[in-house]
Amino acid sequence: MGGDAGPSVVVSALVRSLQRHPAAKFILHGDEAALNDLIKKRKSKFGARVSVRHAPTRVAMDEKPSFALRRRRDSSMWRAIESVKTGEAEAVVSAGNTGALMAMSMYQLGLIEGISRPAIASVWPTQKSQVVVLDCGANVECDAEQLVDFAVMGEAFARAVLGLPKPRVGLLNVGSEEVKGHEAVKGAAQILREANLPMEFTGFIEGNHIGEGTVDVAVTDGFTGNVTLKAIEGTAKLISFYLKRALRRSLLSRLGAVLASGALMALRRKLDPRAYGGGLMLGLNGVVVKSHGGTDALGFAYAIDTAIDMAEGGINRSIAADRAGLRPEAVAS
Amino acid sequence: MGGDAGPSVVVSALVRSLQRHPAAKFILHGDEAALNDLIKKRKSKFGARVSVRHAPTRVAMDEKPSFALRRRRDSSMWRAIESVKTGEAEAVVSAGNTGALMAMSMYQLGLIEGISRPAIASVWPTQKSQVVVLDCGANVECDAEQLVDFAVMGEAFARAVLGLPKPRVGLLNVGSEEVKGHEAVKGAAQILREANLPMEFTGFIEGNHIGEGTVDVAVTDGFTGNVTLKAIEGTAKLISFYLKRALRRSLLSRLGAVLASGALMALRRKLDPRAYGGGLMLGLNGVVVKSHGGTDALGFAYAIDTAIDMAEGGINRSIAADRAGLRPEAVAS
Repeated sequence: MGGDAGPSVVVSALVRSLQRHPAAKFILHGDEAALNDLIKKRKSKFGARVSVRHAPTRVAMDEKPSFALRRRRDSSMWRAIESVKTGEAEAVVSAGNTGALMAMSMYQLGLIEGISRPAIASVWPTQKSQVVVLDCGANVECDAEQLVDFAVMGEAFARAVLGLPKPRVGLLNVGSEEVKGHEAVKGAAQILREANLPMEFTGFIEGNHIGEGTVDVAVTDGFTGNVTLKAIEGTAKLISFYLKRALRRSLLSRLGAVLASGALMALRRKLDPRAYGGGLMLGLNGVVVKSHGGTDALGFAYAIDTAIDMAEGGINRSIAADRAGLRPEAVAS
Repeated sequence: MGGDAGPSVVVSALVRSLQRHPAAKFILHGDEAALNDLIKKRKSKFGARVSVRHAPTRVAMDEKPSFALRRRRDSSMWRAIESVKTGEAEAVVSAGNTGALMAMSMYQLGLIEGISRPAIASVWPTQKSQVVVLDCGANVECDAEQLVDFAVMGEAFARAVLGLPKPRVGLLNVGSEEVKGHEAVKGAAQILREANLPMEFTGFIEGNHIGEGTVDVAVTDGFTGNVTLKAIEGTAKLISFYLKRALRRSLLSRLGAVLASGALMALRRKLDPRAYGGGLMLGLNGVVVKSHGGTDALGFAYAIDTAIDMAEGGINRSIAADRAGLRPEAVAS
């Protein structure tokens, strides 16, 4: 029931998802009348693979997470997470209030053994392929141990979902020399250098390495990660703005833009934030994916793809195993 | 003598700068023989406006700032800063080692009364005009008072150099609501809301607002600022990489690119980091500008432009006056 456009986007997304994932089944939580009305026209396509479960309320996009956690236990969001907790569903996908989704998921599902804080991860394009960046805003301040948790969750995601046997993991810092940065990044780097994890720890990386594709996983605190990823989005918009304006300047450049329109569309698709699956909430005992609130059916369908990949890839078993496998003296430091 | 390309870039830049600033005079510090050799061919253009001062050593690009500060007091960098200290020069521009330049400048010039830490500022293009972002890496951790200092230095720069009578200043955060963020940003916001400064404090901004042009000055700690600005640079490179690749895909798009080449050049100029003056070291008793180490003559000439604008605009008097004008109880908090 969440997101700026409401449940119609979710139902449209299901049309794609049912085709792409022939074995998947879906439970829609929310206003029964409204949802039945939306799926009525698609009854033949949906069949028994889509069921509706009534929830009398919903979490508003501007409600405080603490309020939602206390007062919205009969909401579509609460019930959807509950269906993961009971084992009826293997993953939950929502376009709703991010803070409430995180708070309710933590409360109901709990954290994976050994993980002290969950993180929000995002996947971004690079010059080589793609990169997982985390944390993108779940934690404004992080100590060394939490950054190590994020590295473990990031490499587990890269292995389980992106299929990389030994992901390259870097820690974002203001320089690549060992002496640079504050205590948290220096402490995390020391633990990761000595850890025996199924990844290649490349040490410190700088902001430009995100786009260059130097690593598969970029680890940072939620403050830096959130500001950085929004700045990247803003830069993509800025360049698209300048490019459009420049191409409109003369008759010649307009003609050029028409001839190159296929190439410009390819560029747009490559940079389309909808294609990158939204925010992945890692560290929870369950798969939780947050689609962009302003997304459309295509974006929501990508978020469903990611949720299915995470559940099928067994990401949470990987996180638990890798966290437990960190040498005890490193964990204790 | 610094920078990846050495003094030839600096001497080439002077050709432009002497034309653009008919009243300016330049002192070149460094290896006398090498510099005289470089300016020999341009003797007629340079005349008495360019003089050479011998310095027997130089700071290497990879030397630690603490080492340079102790052992490089006969270097070109030290002597150039010294000429600002003695009043012989009004500004210093260097393409050398950033950390050493900051350390030597702090040691020789000292900080403006009331400012506790210097900051490195960068100017970036936006959808509307441009934005000053600071700190870009001088301080990896910052408290509320330091963020307030940065806001004062940023608005003084925007007034003195960009000519904005009442710059809009925002604090980078993970959300725009007052409750968001860590203690330092919340504390700084409270001081700035109550301060009587020649600026419009717009409260918290998010990473995407940098490119959107919502503010003229974006304030953040040096860790976040450094990672963010390098990520922005990396994103610009990433998009340029995809754009070139997309335009090469077919004969049609290649033809389109040729017709639109004027527009594509305009885009490249707009996003050219050389055009934005390098790193401006604010808070010091003197004007210090760091040009990109890998820059060419055009980039170095832009850095000289910025240094002259800062000196002529009296930025340091503005910073001192605005910092002193902050209400004493706010300063003490």
